Amino acid sequence: MTSPLLEQLIEAFRVLPGVGQKSAQRMAYHVLERERDGGRRLSQALAEAVEKVGHCARCRDFSETEVCATCASPSRGAQLLCIVESPADRLAIEQATGYRGLYFVLQGRLSPLDGIGPSELGLDRLGDRLGEGEVQEMIIATNPTVEGEATAHYLSQLARGHGVKPSRLAHGLPLGGELEYVDRGTLSHAFGSRSEIPQ
Amino acid sequence: MTSPLLEQLIEAFRVLPGVGQKSAQRMAYHVLERERDGGRRLSQALAEAVEKVGHCARCRDFSETEVCATCASPSRGAQLLCIVESPADRLAIEQATGYRGLYFVLQGRLSPLDGIGPSELGLDRLGDRLGEGEVQEMIIATNPTVEGEATAHYLSQLARGHGVKPSRLAHGLPLGGELEYVDRGTLSHAFGSRSEIPQ
Repeated sequence: MTSPLLEQLIEAFRVLPGVGQKSAQRMAYHVLERERDGGRRLSQALAEAVEKVGHCARCRDFSETEVCATCASPSRGAQLLCIVESPADRLAIEQATGYRGLYFVLQGRLSPLDGIGPSELGLDRLGDRLGEGEVQEMIIATNPTVEGEATAHYLSQLARGHGVKPSRLAHGLPLGGELEYVDRGTLSHAFGSRSEIPQ
Repeated sequence: MTSPLLEQLIEAFRVLPGVGQKSAQRMAYHVLERERDGGRRLSQALAEAVEKVGHCARCRDFSETEVCATCASPSRGAQLLCIVESPADRLAIEQATGYRGLYFVLQGRLSPLDGIGPSELGLDRLGDRLGEGEVQEMIIATNPTVEGEATAHYLSQLARGHGVKPSRLAHGLPLGGELEYVDRGTLSHAFGSRSEIPQ
């Protein structure tokens, strides 16, 4: 390579998820050939975000303020609390649904083998929050994986212990999916959980 | 979104080639969740490269020095000059072949409709260089596209005008390809350019 700085840039791009040697090269060349201004903006945005974005003290989602805009908003109801594993999950729910309650982001899932227990997920703080008495329903939106289910089970017991109603997102056939291609577990669950068609 | 800085970072990632909204989100979350150090390094590398990487005065490839390491190297022969369209093409040749001559990077191809003529590709400087009399063969490695072929034709005339032998990369079947799936143009060319098998 003709330029050590270019080599260093290619290496640095590989920190991004799904970016290997070839994509990193393409990105570096693209920025240098056509997007120097965009590259400057990205460098700036990265530096600022990495230094200043921390976690909201209420919901543990990313925030550069002590309490994030959602938690501080007076227009969101504090009776509903939706628990998600990651900020990306929270964003997906926010974009897909008309949910107007609050969130709590675990930033992970219970996984004792990896040393991730209740305190790593901030569940002590969640317990305190449930103890405040405002929350009436805890909507558990962890992923439908083994660890996600175990986390959901733990959360539901935590909720009941504080007199809060736990609920779980519905499982079943995805909209627009074809029965033939749905995995067995989902199909079996959807079959067992069938509901009467209202008149 | 809970954080304006995060939003700004996602937007900034979209400057990269092949990165849409979803990938940009994934990159931003990944950096903030798991790779803050990597993010810092990337920010630094980007800022440095964007400010300091210019073009080599000899070959027009990216370089942060006046003349790049390849052009300055005494171990590379100045009799052979390989012309490529982009730094990525140069890198591909450098990695795939044992070529020990020099390069000249056009940073584009002739395209009169887009206002890209000989001077935009540095062909005046290339002409001066051929005039120095050191170069004996010009290996034209522009892409086998319509514009690449037109550029190759122009270059071959430029070379001949300076008494330099122009050559072109071989066209034909790609190694490991299957005849059945090769496009007609390539197959027809390979058929017409068949060579006798040496004894």
